[in-house]
Amino acid sequence: MKIKANTNFLSIKETYLFSEIGARVRKYSEEHPEASIIRLGIGDVTLPLNKVVTDAMTKAVSEMGVKDTFRGYPPEYGYDFLREAISSYYKRNNVDIPASDIFVSDGAKSDCGNFPDILGNNEILIPDPVYPVYIDSNTMNGNNINLVKGSIENGFTPMPSDITTGDKPYVIYICSPNNPTGAVYTAEGLKAWVDYALKTGSLIVFDAAYEAFISEDLPRSIFEIEGAGECAIEICSFSKFAGFTGTRCGWTVVPAGLDADGVKLQKLWARRQATKFNGVNYPVQRGAEAALSVEGIKACMEAIDYYRANAKLIADLMTRKGIFFTGGINSPYIWLKCPNDMGSWDFFDMLLNEAQVVGTPGEGFGEAGAGFFRLTSFGSSEATAEAVARLDKLL
Amino acid sequence: MKIKANTNFLSIKETYLFSEIGARVRKYSEEHPEASIIRLGIGDVTLPLNKVVTDAMTKAVSEMGVKDTFRGYPPEYGYDFLREAISSYYKRNNVDIPASDIFVSDGAKSDCGNFPDILGNNEILIPDPVYPVYIDSNTMNGNNINLVKGSIENGFTPMPSDITTGDKPYVIYICSPNNPTGAVYTAEGLKAWVDYALKTGSLIVFDAAYEAFISEDLPRSIFEIEGAGECAIEICSFSKFAGFTGTRCGWTVVPAGLDADGVKLQKLWARRQATKFNGVNYPVQRGAEAALSVEGIKACMEAIDYYRANAKLIADLMTRKGIFFTGGINSPYIWLKCPNDMGSWDFFDMLLNEAQVVGTPGEGFGEAGAGFFRLTSFGSSEATAEAVARLDKLL
Repeated sequence: MKIKANTNFLSIKETYLFSEIGARVRKYSEEHPEASIIRLGIGDVTLPLNKVVTDAMTKAVSEMGVKDTFRGYPPEYGYDFLREAISSYYKRNNVDIPASDIFVSDGAKSDCGNFPDILGNNEILIPDPVYPVYIDSNTMNGNNINLVKGSIENGFTPMPSDITTGDKPYVIYICSPNNPTGAVYTAEGLKAWVDYALKTGSLIVFDAAYEAFISEDLPRSIFEIEGAGECAIEICSFSKFAGFTGTRCGWTVVPAGLDADGVKLQKLWARRQATKFNGVNYPVQRGAEAALSVEGIKACMEAIDYYRANAKLIADLMTRKGIFFTGGINSPYIWLKCPNDMGSWDFFDMLLNEAQVVGTPGEGFGEAGAGFFRLTSFGSSEATAEAVARLDKLL
Repeated sequence: MKIKANTNFLSIKETYLFSEIGARVRKYSEEHPEASIIRLGIGDVTLPLNKVVTDAMTKAVSEMGVKDTFRGYPPEYGYDFLREAISSYYKRNNVDIPASDIFVSDGAKSDCGNFPDILGNNEILIPDPVYPVYIDSNTMNGNNINLVKGSIENGFTPMPSDITTGDKPYVIYICSPNNPTGAVYTAEGLKAWVDYALKTGSLIVFDAAYEAFISEDLPRSIFEIEGAGECAIEICSFSKFAGFTGTRCGWTVVPAGLDADGVKLQKLWARRQATKFNGVNYPVQRGAEAALSVEGIKACMEAIDYYRANAKLIADLMTRKGIFFTGGINSPYIWLKCPNDMGSWDFFDMLLNEAQVVGTPGEGFGEAGAGFFRLTSFGSSEATAEAVARLDKLL
């Protein structure tokens, strides 16, 4: 055909990280069929949906099977019952978000990926290392990407003073708690970014997908910071909070006042969603609503506590061994410096060969991840304890 | 903020059609509180999900509540069980689509809206009247839109000979059975478009969302036409087939061989979906799989037959009255010429005032819709019969 493809796609870096991990683990398994390999590289939840959620979903499915309670096209921005429930969830943290600023979707990844649709070509500022969707989706739109590096010095929470590409109006991505580093911004840290955004006319895209893991007194929402309503949107998810990775529900807050060079972004996002999206499955929205009920939150936090206990086991080991790490306390991820300046892949091979533990080399999340390594707390408590015991001997 | 918005959004035509319909109906109801108004403007299904589907979904929800059967992130392109089931569904019509060419999504609207992401700026060819998403999503991407007009002369199935903007490589949208006209292309008609696409290097985006309504010997898939594999993608949906408007599941076929100026489109769509989409809820995919089973298809066709009977009542009335119409036989929509050269809104008012029947003025779907009117078969059979009786007296 002679029609033109979007050739920006050809600029996306191909990553072979996970296929390479798979290949090395397969090879080891074949050579050591007796080995019991423990996977601490999982980025997906493993505990089932809780009963509060499945009961609500089952009831909703049965409503869909009866003429009087059947529901057709859902509202494109989410049912009011769920938008109100999310608004109330924010009130826990004394954050006041009107339901009309909340747009329900089939997940944070969709919203992260689709949000650049409503923006023009802007300069993009993305922390390194980070969740690859920010870079890939902006590359698809032909935007120029500037990286701001995480490091031991800034605790993997890079600050405006770490910007090396000049002060200008950026679209700034912040993921806190961060994937993959687990590092969390303090209120002061986020305030510095909000002030920077207000000063330069930048927009902050705040990814709060891991907020439920925060156990210390740290901000769970960018809207806890004064001035954020004039310079930030927030993307959040039921995936980690309620184990919805296979259930698919998230939301994005676009404040009504947000103005991009004279254009109200909320109006554009509403239009984008009404045109290119048809809302979320009704039973899923009922499940999400149930997750935000008092009993739902309690049940969700039991699962989070399970993962947290795993994370603490790993974090405590790193502390004992004197290995630098971030995360593990307010995050399901532990991001550690490979000991003795080992490269990430050498460390990967050592863990696989000597302890039969699989993790994720840091460069999978950006160049600044080289020499670092990610372990996750989504395994079973038994497997995590066993892995920690093996690593305790090895490191 | 100083960052730039996507100002292409400002070029999208605002439509006040449905709010204007709502306002007129509300006013009439207030002035005539005793009136029993029948709505034949509904574009959404009204029958509940069938038991084959709800049983499968209920079972899947319960699997999600048990650790051993819980499923996390779904494959971005759909579970193999559903891709295989869709592939088999095509085999009914002797169309051979490998499962690997099928990309499951949360609905045809998402795929219609998102597909332009993977294309460059192309000349777009869109029939008028038509489903507004094609125009709006391409306007958002800044593409130049060319219309090819439906008319009584071409039976609202415009042909390549109706193009007034010259022969060039277009992205050509074809919706058959058409929304809103219900007109269906014959195999010869589609062959002419495929030949045109092959000759000009164009891509056909074929929207088959209403294929389940086809009862005569007409193509249900563009891939029934020789050569379509080199110039077409197809978007389809469970919304009308299985009443999934509130359940959300659809798919897009992107043939592996499809080449846009040297770039394989399947690879780009796969990359787009892997980056900006995280797959469809597991219970929904099990429900969709069940809808494609032998018992599922039987149950789905019972609902379709119910709507078809409604459509036939309306179509037969138009035939008796000698009013030009398309659709109604292979489509849930009846698209009629307003009698006596009335304008669509005058006809709307007449039906509302004289028969208390609500339909949709044709200009809501494009300028070529002026003077035409859409009635739908998604009401109850009782209400449809009563509406037809009233219209029989009036027209």
